[in-house]
Amino acid sequence: MSEAFDAVDIIRTKRDKGELSSEEIAWVIDAYTREVVADEQMSALGMAIFLNGMSRREIRDWTTAMIESGERMDFSSLSRPTADKHSTGGVGDKITLPLAPLVAACGVAVPQLSGRGLGHTGGTLDKLEAIPGWRAALSNEEMLTQLEEVGAVICAAGSGLAPADKRLYALRDVTGIVEAIPLIASSIMSKKIAEGTGALVLDVKVGSGAFMKTEEDARELARTMVDLGKDAGVNTVALLTDMSTPLGLTAGNGLEVRESVEVLQGGGPADVVELTVALAREMLQGAGVTDVDPADALQDGRAYDVWRKMIQAQDGDPDAPMPTAKETQEVVADADGVLTELDAMAVGVSAWRLGAGRARKEDPVQAAAGIELHAKPGDEVKKGQKLMTLHTDTPERFERALAALEDGWKIGGEPVGPTQIVIDRIA
Amino acid sequence: MSEAFDAVDIIRTKRDKGELSSEEIAWVIDAYTREVVADEQMSALGMAIFLNGMSRREIRDWTTAMIESGERMDFSSLSRPTADKHSTGGVGDKITLPLAPLVAACGVAVPQLSGRGLGHTGGTLDKLEAIPGWRAALSNEEMLTQLEEVGAVICAAGSGLAPADKRLYALRDVTGIVEAIPLIASSIMSKKIAEGTGALVLDVKVGSGAFMKTEEDARELARTMVDLGKDAGVNTVALLTDMSTPLGLTAGNGLEVRESVEVLQGGGPADVVELTVALAREMLQGAGVTDVDPADALQDGRAYDVWRKMIQAQDGDPDAPMPTAKETQEVVADADGVLTELDAMAVGVSAWRLGAGRARKEDPVQAAAGIELHAKPGDEVKKGQKLMTLHTDTPERFERALAALEDGWKIGGEPVGPTQIVIDRIA
Repeated sequence: MSEAFDAVDIIRTKRDKGELSSEEIAWVIDAYTREVVADEQMSALGMAIFLNGMSRREIRDWTTAMIESGERMDFSSLSRPTADKHSTGGVGDKITLPLAPLVAACGVAVPQLSGRGLGHTGGTLDKLEAIPGWRAALSNEEMLTQLEEVGAVICAAGSGLAPADKRLYALRDVTGIVEAIPLIASSIMSKKIAEGTGALVLDVKVGSGAFMKTEEDARELARTMVDLGKDAGVNTVALLTDMSTPLGLTAGNGLEVRESVEVLQGGGPADVVELTVALAREMLQGAGVTDVDPADALQDGRAYDVWRKMIQAQDGDPDAPMPTAKETQEVVADADGVLTELDAMAVGVSAWRLGAGRARKEDPVQAAAGIELHAKPGDEVKKGQKLMTLHTDTPERFERALAALEDGWKIGGEPVGPTQIVIDRIA
Repeated sequence: MSEAFDAVDIIRTKRDKGELSSEEIAWVIDAYTREVVADEQMSALGMAIFLNGMSRREIRDWTTAMIESGERMDFSSLSRPTADKHSTGGVGDKITLPLAPLVAACGVAVPQLSGRGLGHTGGTLDKLEAIPGWRAALSNEEMLTQLEEVGAVICAAGSGLAPADKRLYALRDVTGIVEAIPLIASSIMSKKIAEGTGALVLDVKVGSGAFMKTEEDARELARTMVDLGKDAGVNTVALLTDMSTPLGLTAGNGLEVRESVEVLQGGGPADVVELTVALAREMLQGAGVTDVDPADALQDGRAYDVWRKMIQAQDGDPDAPMPTAKETQEVVADADGVLTELDAMAVGVSAWRLGAGRARKEDPVQAAAGIELHAKPGDEVKKGQKLMTLHTDTPERFERALAALEDGWKIGGEPVGPTQIVIDRIA
């Protein structure tokens, strides 16, 4: 069969800073899915996009083409509106765990298709798999039933949604083109739009532990994704949130489940509670529910009840204790003073090296590995006081995990204000 | 085995406009040869090099690494000095055919490792294969014997020289990164340096029928290659030559052999003679032979004698007539006046479509296909006079070949001066 376009012509156009037509973009993604365009051609095109950028129209066409490479889901048969959230990923970012049941408890269904972690940021599915019995894979029918009956589902994205994105994402990872804003935005939004949610809230992280290190880049990514959502008829809003220091007091799969349950029981660290409630308000508002305060549903146990049902519906035991690591090691303060810095990236890499994350997508993760924080920036500390506890089943990992933390925290003389979690709102 | 570097780190460095270390470059080429670095990684790196460039030091290291991926030849046992020539490729560029025997006739051995054509520029081996019986593949031993006994050899480059370049060249072709000056320069020079020639003359074409469309780009490529040659101890000089109009009066394999023989017999078109003699002078001078005038050796039959021996040594019949095309078609002048323009690219693409070249490297070529020119820019023409004769064995090709020539020539009222062949000399 003769092809409508030639991959080399398309690569050259973008290489020479030209704009690709809608037809060219539709063809190149479709031909990549059909394996007519080869990986080495797509990676050259990806690098040209990384370096020369894309117009808003090109990004929209690219996203549409990725959606059309697969199936679309449809939640219109549900008795409730739907809302979804996506985070660009951070250290200690367990927000999805309390958030989904919280929003469901307030009357909005949450179909949360999630992924596994790669590199220093954890994956939601890896966290929930620390719960004995819990399973990530659901059929579309199971998912719809659970959404109707429980109101919230967190499960693995099936291979049917945006398969072109799946292949492209793996390619970007090995060819050094992960951080291109047009490619990040279209990757995230193609899956969310294909998923068919009515409202979408984006948690765009900025800081050392995030993909976007600068506020300028994070703002551009947020703006690009909000535009894509609106163009596709999805009620979309983005919060720019801080990722210079870890969220909450834990990083690691089982440790983060434990902390999420504390939040769902009305306790937990203030920053996790604050961000969970802020995102819940946006999701409810996006779905048209404005007469409920999610903070109440955390305090009175309604969110926790949904959590238990959600875990049970996926064969998990909500009462099972989290697995305990075989070995722990402590990091202590070397001076009296104020903890002025606790770097998200350092903690993320250290937790990853302890076994909480994976270097390659086929690697296993340890359910109990990770880091507990005993102080956060702004806290006063005394020399010899515990700052962190490192957990792992494989103690030979301590050395490299401790090395990652070197220069990752500072004690100073000056008081520092608390971190502002929500930096901005982009609608 | 653990690797010294990571391909993704190297890609990111170049992507972010950094400079790669000598060790990184040596590793990435070696790892690509060992297939530890994948095609999709090399193409992403290639695109980053295309867009962000390379320093002189990086290009030198890249060339060295490609040489070290394979074997090196050694001509030091020969009783004569050696000189080689490389052309960046043009339309009607048959110069290698008369040049190699001419320089040999003047006392310098010419080991000319050549390639096949791809796209609109012809390949030297394709041209010689129009001669019945002639074979391109020689062993290294056959090559040395022929160099000692005849003085000139034109044959296929064995797979042992710079194998990394072979793989990279095929990759560049399908990923839209052929025209990057660091990659072109290192590709050409790695093979020429590995070949072990003592002197090298580069014919860098500029104009519509050349890879380099502008004098600025051609000059940069020439300068880059001359630097690489000198850094490697090869006496290197470059001529910048015109490729806005075809060289000589023929484009096509058998047609160009016929014209080359005319030149070797003391006749032939003035531009082909001029460029052949200019390049011969440079090669002789580079090899330290300054007391011979190559123009004499063309006129008195010495060059033609070497040609006959060279063809016979490779089993070709120098007296066999060239194959004749099954069909011909003429293009005639549509007005009286002066031929003001005859575009090299138009003629090259037309000859290619007639069957003289190939679209993919596994395609066959027609020995008799091509174009004869009956007028060159500056010539006065009369309405109805033949301008070109198109030759092919497959007449269904005429339509697209004629389409390529549309707007490829112009007849005007003003006289135009002759084309200046040699534009500049870079040493």
